[in-house]
Amino acid sequence: MSEVRVIQVNESIFAENDRSAELIRKRLTAQGTLFLNFMSSPGSGKTTTLVALINRLKGSLNIGEMDVDIESSLDAQRVADRTGIRSLQIHNGGLCHIDADMTARALLEYDTEGLDLLILENIGNLVCPAEFDTGAHKNVTILSVPEGDDKPLKYPLMYQVSDVVLINKIDALDYFDFDLEKAKERILALNPKAIFFPISAKTGEGLDAVCDWVVEELEAVRAGKI
Amino acid sequence: MSEVRVIQVNESIFAENDRSAELIRKRLTAQGTLFLNFMSSPGSGKTTTLVALINRLKGSLNIGEMDVDIESSLDAQRVADRTGIRSLQIHNGGLCHIDADMTARALLEYDTEGLDLLILENIGNLVCPAEFDTGAHKNVTILSVPEGDDKPLKYPLMYQVSDVVLINKIDALDYFDFDLEKAKERILALNPKAIFFPISAKTGEGLDAVCDWVVEELEAVRAGKI
Repeated sequence: MSEVRVIQVNESIFAENDRSAELIRKRLTAQGTLFLNFMSSPGSGKTTTLVALINRLKGSLNIGEMDVDIESSLDAQRVADRTGIRSLQIHNGGLCHIDADMTARALLEYDTEGLDLLILENIGNLVCPAEFDTGAHKNVTILSVPEGDDKPLKYPLMYQVSDVVLINKIDALDYFDFDLEKAKERILALNPKAIFFPISAKTGEGLDAVCDWVVEELEAVRAGKI
Repeated sequence: MSEVRVIQVNESIFAENDRSAELIRKRLTAQGTLFLNFMSSPGSGKTTTLVALINRLKGSLNIGEMDVDIESSLDAQRVADRTGIRSLQIHNGGLCHIDADMTARALLEYDTEGLDLLILENIGNLVCPAEFDTGAHKNVTILSVPEGDDKPLKYPLMYQVSDVVLINKIDALDYFDFDLEKAKERILALNPKAIFFPISAKTGEGLDAVCDWVVEELEAVRAGKI
């Protein structure tokens, strides 16, 4: 009887993706650019949060931004219009994620030399983006108050791979049945190292602390600690 | 030079899915069961809406419910606890959608004989579930006010395949920057036949109209009009 060779297609895809991601990370580390990947549900306030953070940081940091969407260019346009920084819209052809090779192709179009900070706004989705390392130094997930404090129970991988969780729309805490402590506990059970920032991108509450964290991470990249 | 055969793998997957979906639809039509597929972002209020609708309809209709999630059983448990109807949790192994064959397997576990209404709560995601016909007679999408009125521009396929759009959390309209007319216009541009119900699953506003629609659709199925 002939021998049958078995391959794990998914493992192979993820292993290749991880190698590409590592190459991206190494190159950006070498040039002293911190690369952050922002993920969340649709409508959690990713673009609004990024605009607010960029406007606070752009006086001291040179920032670039890349936006992933299925077909519209709304988000990249909003970021460019509202912050004045250079933004690239990536259309991923209807997929529910962006992987490291797609990111690498985008980086061929987008000159990152001299950037202090490169931001990737991933597609709005709590499932697929969590599966693919994009080459970012850190993953940031936004969980917004109207979505409910049960999201970590339902989309655990997203919280396992997130270094930082921004709990957004806290100005609406009185309006929705959202328990901040319960949300944190559920995330810490999945990922004990998770860092939290309760914020309101609308009012600006909590954003200075996020900016301080970004600056610390940039220093860590430049000190070879990430 | 040899001839090279080209296959469209995706088209083949979708064509097979469509055949399975048609078989599901035919069987449920034959037994007089209306099958509705509910889709939305995470946190838009799918489960809360379904609980409210089921509690309004269960006095007059025999209702079954199936819930798709990656790994938790929270939603099926909530529906069962809060309505008393029979609910089945489907774990889809980390995928971002459920297709017709997965639905068919679930139907082997779940006896639908004698049901007037079968509800599928799809996974919270605006990308993948839109691609797969589940065999439902009608697709219902929930768009919640805090998510923003730009979602139809960013996730067009979801709105193209939806027969009905429930605009949920309208009790929060004063609190968020959401233009109901603009949302409708954007959806109608993608899908001129879309039907809208502005609702609040929390306060109950608008739910009676949705219940009337469900009863009309059940009558249409039984009259052989769907």
